[in-house]
Amino acid sequence: MIRFNCDYSEGAHPLILEKLAQTNLEQLPGYGLDPYSLQAAELIKQQCQTPQAAVHLLSGGTQTNLTVLAALLRPYQSVISADSGHINVHETGAIETTGHRVVTAPNSEGKITATQIDRLCQAHWQDDNPEFAPQPKVVYLSFPTELGTLYSKQELLDIRRACDENNLYLFIDGARLGYGLTAPGNDLTLPQLARCCDAFYIGGTKLGTLLGEAVVIVNPKLQKDFRYFMKQRGALLAKGRILGIQFLTLFTDNLYLQLAEHANNMAALVRQACRQAGFDFLCDSPTNQQFPIVPNTLLKKLEQQYVFSHIEPVGKDKTAIRICTSWATRKEDVEQLAADLQRLSGK
Amino acid sequence: MIRFNCDYSEGAHPLILEKLAQTNLEQLPGYGLDPYSLQAAELIKQQCQTPQAAVHLLSGGTQTNLTVLAALLRPYQSVISADSGHINVHETGAIETTGHRVVTAPNSEGKITATQIDRLCQAHWQDDNPEFAPQPKVVYLSFPTELGTLYSKQELLDIRRACDENNLYLFIDGARLGYGLTAPGNDLTLPQLARCCDAFYIGGTKLGTLLGEAVVIVNPKLQKDFRYFMKQRGALLAKGRILGIQFLTLFTDNLYLQLAEHANNMAALVRQACRQAGFDFLCDSPTNQQFPIVPNTLLKKLEQQYVFSHIEPVGKDKTAIRICTSWATRKEDVEQLAADLQRLSGK
Amino acid sequence: MIRFNCDYSEGAHPLILEKLAQTNLEQLPGYGLDPYSLQAAELIKQQCQTPQAAVHLLSGGTQTNLTVLAALLRPYQSVISADSGHINVHETGAIETTGHRVVTAPNSEGKITATQIDRLCQAHWQDDNPEFAPQPKVVYLSFPTELGTLYSKQELLDIRRACDENNLYLFIDGARLGYGLTAPGNDLTLPQLARCCDAFYIGGTKLGTLLGEAVVIVNPKLQKDFRYFMKQRGALLAKGRILGIQFLTLFTDNLYLQLAEHANNMAALVRQACRQAGFDFLCDSPTNQQFPIVPNTLLKKLEQQYVFSHIEPVGKDKTAIRICTSWATRKEDVEQLAADLQRLSGK
Amino acid sequence: MIRFNCDYSEGAHPLILEKLAQTNLEQLPGYGLDPYSLQAAELIKQQCQTPQAAVHLLSGGTQTNLTVLAALLRPYQSVISADSGHINVHETGAIETTGHRVVTAPNSEGKITATQIDRLCQAHWQDDNPEFAPQPKVVYLSFPTELGTLYSKQELLDIRRACDENNLYLFIDGARLGYGLTAPGNDLTLPQLARCCDAFYIGGTKLGTLLGEAVVIVNPKLQKDFRYFMKQRGALLAKGRILGIQFLTLFTDNLYLQLAEHANNMAALVRQACRQAGFDFLCDSPTNQQFPIVPNTLLKKLEQQYVFSHIEPVGKDKTAIRICTSWATRKEDVEQLAADLQRLSGK
Repeated sequence: MIRFNCDYSEGAHPLILEKLAQTNLEQLPGYGLDPYSLQAAELIKQQCQTPQAAVHLLSGGTQTNLTVLAALLRPYQSVISADSGHINVHETGAIETTGHRVVTAPNSEGKITATQIDRLCQAHWQDDNPEFAPQPKVVYLSFPTELGTLYSKQELLDIRRACDENNLYLFIDGARLGYGLTAPGNDLTLPQLARCCDAFYIGGTKLGTLLGEAVVIVNPKLQKDFRYFMKQRGALLAKGRILGIQFLTLFTDNLYLQLAEHANNMAALVRQACRQAGFDFLCDSPTNQQFPIVPNTLLKKLEQQYVFSHIEPVGKDKTAIRICTSWATRKEDVEQLAADLQRLSGK
Repeated sequence: MIRFNCDYSEGAHPLILEKLAQTNLEQLPGYGLDPYSLQAAELIKQQCQTPQAAVHLLSGGTQTNLTVLAALLRPYQSVISADSGHINVHETGAIETTGHRVVTAPNSEGKITATQIDRLCQAHWQDDNPEFAPQPKVVYLSFPTELGTLYSKQELLDIRRACDENNLYLFIDGARLGYGLTAPGNDLTLPQLARCCDAFYIGGTKLGTLLGEAVVIVNPKLQKDFRYFMKQRGALLAKGRILGIQFLTLFTDNLYLQLAEHANNMAALVRQACRQAGFDFLCDSPTNQQFPIVPNTLLKKLEQQYVFSHIEPVGKDKTAIRICTSWATRKEDVEQLAADLQRLSGK
Repeated sequence: MIRFNCDYSEGAHPLILEKLAQTNLEQLPGYGLDPYSLQAAELIKQQCQTPQAAVHLLSGGTQTNLTVLAALLRPYQSVISADSGHINVHETGAIETTGHRVVTAPNSEGKITATQIDRLCQAHWQDDNPEFAPQPKVVYLSFPTELGTLYSKQELLDIRRACDENNLYLFIDGARLGYGLTAPGNDLTLPQLARCCDAFYIGGTKLGTLLGEAVVIVNPKLQKDFRYFMKQRGALLAKGRILGIQFLTLFTDNLYLQLAEHANNMAALVRQACRQAGFDFLCDSPTNQQFPIVPNTLLKKLEQQYVFSHIEPVGKDKTAIRICTSWATRKEDVEQLAADLQRLSGK
Repeated sequence: MIRFNCDYSEGAHPLILEKLAQTNLEQLPGYGLDPYSLQAAELIKQQCQTPQAAVHLLSGGTQTNLTVLAALLRPYQSVISADSGHINVHETGAIETTGHRVVTAPNSEGKITATQIDRLCQAHWQDDNPEFAPQPKVVYLSFPTELGTLYSKQELLDIRRACDENNLYLFIDGARLGYGLTAPGNDLTLPQLARCCDAFYIGGTKLGTLLGEAVVIVNPKLQKDFRYFMKQRGALLAKGRILGIQFLTLFTDNLYLQLAEHANNMAALVRQACRQAGFDFLCDSPTNQQFPIVPNTLLKKLEQQYVFSHIEPVGKDKTAIRICTSWATRKEDVEQLAADLQRLSGK
């Protein structure tokens, strides 16, 4: 079976394993204070062009989201998210467990708009008793979104404006950040994105590391005591080195973006093959996740050899699936999938 | 100004004040262990025909909802509610602060259905990874709803069936319970409602007491250690007697239902007057809350003499308002309102 | 049976009931925005000489402690308390439920010292990894303490100094504040105490109201959005008037301090009688709680007619008990107790 | 500099890195459902002789403690721990953040006794109002303790008896479990320890893995829905394989115990050298942590070449330090330390 169901089916990029092995017997301080973690943080700040930022390395996406939001919100404040946002659909209510409501806005291809944010805030503040509802304080976006789509530069600037006008922080979940930055049509650079945010993170787990997400707290007012939050939530690894070494490797010689670009290229081949097979798509994604709508009979045959994620039934006869590529996707596997699609669809 | 904006504009029914004064200098045990509280609990169990129930007296609705749900849910479980439910719109995220997600279903005139509950549960359990979302465990209803409407006996039995099939508890917010039980067209008795629930409460604050809600935990499995939950949430009054005395008074000689019936009768007069004035209604409520849609020009004139709650704009020129009656509403005030409506509407 | 076990055995002072009855049918806004609540707040600010303070009325002590501490602490911060502090021994872990550790220091007659606070803070900040322990941020004191004792002006100023030097807030639990302010030997006035604190509260439940505690947030930086905290914790009563009316009555014509003084006088008679009976005391309390150590044989006889609280066994043959007086204690009851003590002790 | 300050200064045992590299490009399911994780769980159950247990792999100690305790405790329940317990001194109040109080008992060489547990429970249940304090429900022990000491079989059986009689669960923190099982004088086997517990964990981070702790939930009643707890706390790694592969390696061919034994042997050499240097010890530890009390002048010289942890000053002139060995400690480094100790102490 060839797995196209997600972007974390393999271990780590070989250079990362190599670097872990090379440094393995070095004796280093724990808890993220080793030189590799510090260098990784420096490198990330440089590449983000945010010298005043604070960078912390955590293990996974849910942990990162709950820890950052715990630090950004007071107990009575809420976070605004697309209804399709990861914190709303795939984290077992981790944010609510932290005490906060996720206020959702209906997504359009995975995205929300500045106007939606404005309206939610107006509804809150114009109520006779604003204090009877959680106070919106953070906007949570994903770049790329759960549906693989991207905010344009203008859309992000509009959202930043909405945040400023409504006294909100902007926090971007970049679990798949690299796939977005290297996607065809993307008009945002890493420094531009960083400048727009109060905090964001650069995902490793879904882009070539064994584990790890690099949080960049851009807004200096939000940096204080963040290590307390990490420790308290079980997010401060004793051997922080393993995160530092991985991110140092990713951010050396542009590896991070190269891996992402490879995945996007593989996804483009998948997209093309799906189009040729006559499939519609749930949405128009330029990144490593593709969401074709596949006839069930054909899907059944494909699934004898490939693993996909099922997203939702479309009508009686079709299913929207997710086909994911990654840094590790082999071109021959994609070509085989394309050939099978052509053969099975008769197109 | 005459206040029709809510059902808690006055203090308590005079019989309650009288009884508080009569007993004032009696020396009694604290924390709900006084004879009045115990008698009130017994009386409530009798009138609910639930001899095995546990009854506890708390202060207000939000406190009651958060304390009961803290006791009914494990940390990863969620409560299903109408999107219009009090816990979703008027409690500052108290349930989320307690660590739980409120999973909402779109309301129809304030109500949700057994089918909606079934679907939410199916969606949860049919997911490849149910553990990636909070597990639904409680259904929260209001009787009457926030829009003054009522579940019929059949609707409630259907929801009970959905709860049984999906392994859910049923918890009914009865902040205005009496208004529902005495409403024209209601086909549910207090014992029938009690038998349907795992837990519910009988509201005092909005029905004639200074404060107080009587929680009835019908399901014996949920009764253990509830006083710990109360104390921990600040819900165990030192002078519990003041709750006991009030509920004892309300449940003696049928006072509770008489007060509710009076309010419903007053609301019927309001409804009639609104109809004669040609107003539409946001929904068809047989209870003490009426939701007429009033032309803004007329509303402005009315509001020189009356206080209402604004619910939402309807089109450009009208506003849905809430007109509330209560145990304390004077017939002459309603008649004056009716006369003013007739005069101002010219109908 | 005559109850001396606590100071909340009766209802409310008759003037309070009278005022509740007088105003009962007035239609007033809810949620603490009625004129009585606003006047009570003004009066309290005047008498505290803290014009810039914010005053909020809540229901009970545990509710007040958890709500105020939720507002004063970030998630990783802790509160320092005497091990005998109410938040540590009588609130079912309400503070921990709110997410915070109570860091305890051993009490001396119910009190802690500036030096103890300094040491706890030094221990925290001198650790190699301060972020591995909760960060101390609030000092919680009771005035009077759980043992009825008082901080002197100098002790309180020293603690204020410790708070300033260690960047801590000072929060005083005044559930029995009046008993302290009117105690013989007390050298603190209400304005002096208020000026020392970041926040404190004036207890009503244990000093003559049906329920209610008046929180005074002295530090303007801590006042923002406090009503959100109240609502979220179920601490915002719909009929806030009943708190407003009660505190307005207490703070008119000096009633609050008069009631306290009466209780202290009654306690002085108790103390004298206990001394004459030859009892030692657990501590030297000048306020309404007395802690005599009573031979068990004698205690058994007394308890045929009186109710006391048992505190702890002292040796094999004696028990430290609490004898409480209150605004409602009748002189004839105290005299009867004194006579019985004399008779039974043979002294 | 040679680091003896902790047991997590290096990466992972080379066999683990090798196995990670070998399997790196295999495509596997995520979230702990890969065959390596499942095999590791099976192997652990076999070696514990607990076929009915559930095994889950988490990242680190704090995460494991907070997740397990969240699953074992209801919101009003507390955990009993030695005051020196990791959850009390090194986790930033993670347990309190989860809503629970840590009730501490004074440790004796890092340990608590069945009698202390009995007394705490009696104090709770004999109170007039048990519900005014958190209800004790779990006993948390460490094996070995924070001071490197061990519970004997009899001590553990006594504690199990106390747990049974007081209706408590027993949870053992085995962050350094292997060091205990292989220590000279230890009389407990892994199956015996497992049988005594309701839940415990086998630490990897401090015993040769990059990260990872294997939780063994022995009591079937506590196993339900544990993956919800993990996911909600950010403790379910997408690439769960990296934990599975590591624990599979550790539990194959007895590697885990061999590594521990090596560390204990190295620690024995350290202990001997310290004794020869004339040092006293804070406690008598047979495991990989040694706590000699070292003259400050000598310590200063040693610290030009070695890194230790400082525990506490002893008198004016000495300091209790921690010297840790691990699977990775090189015999030549220990011999050099011994030689330096001899030289510097002149003994």
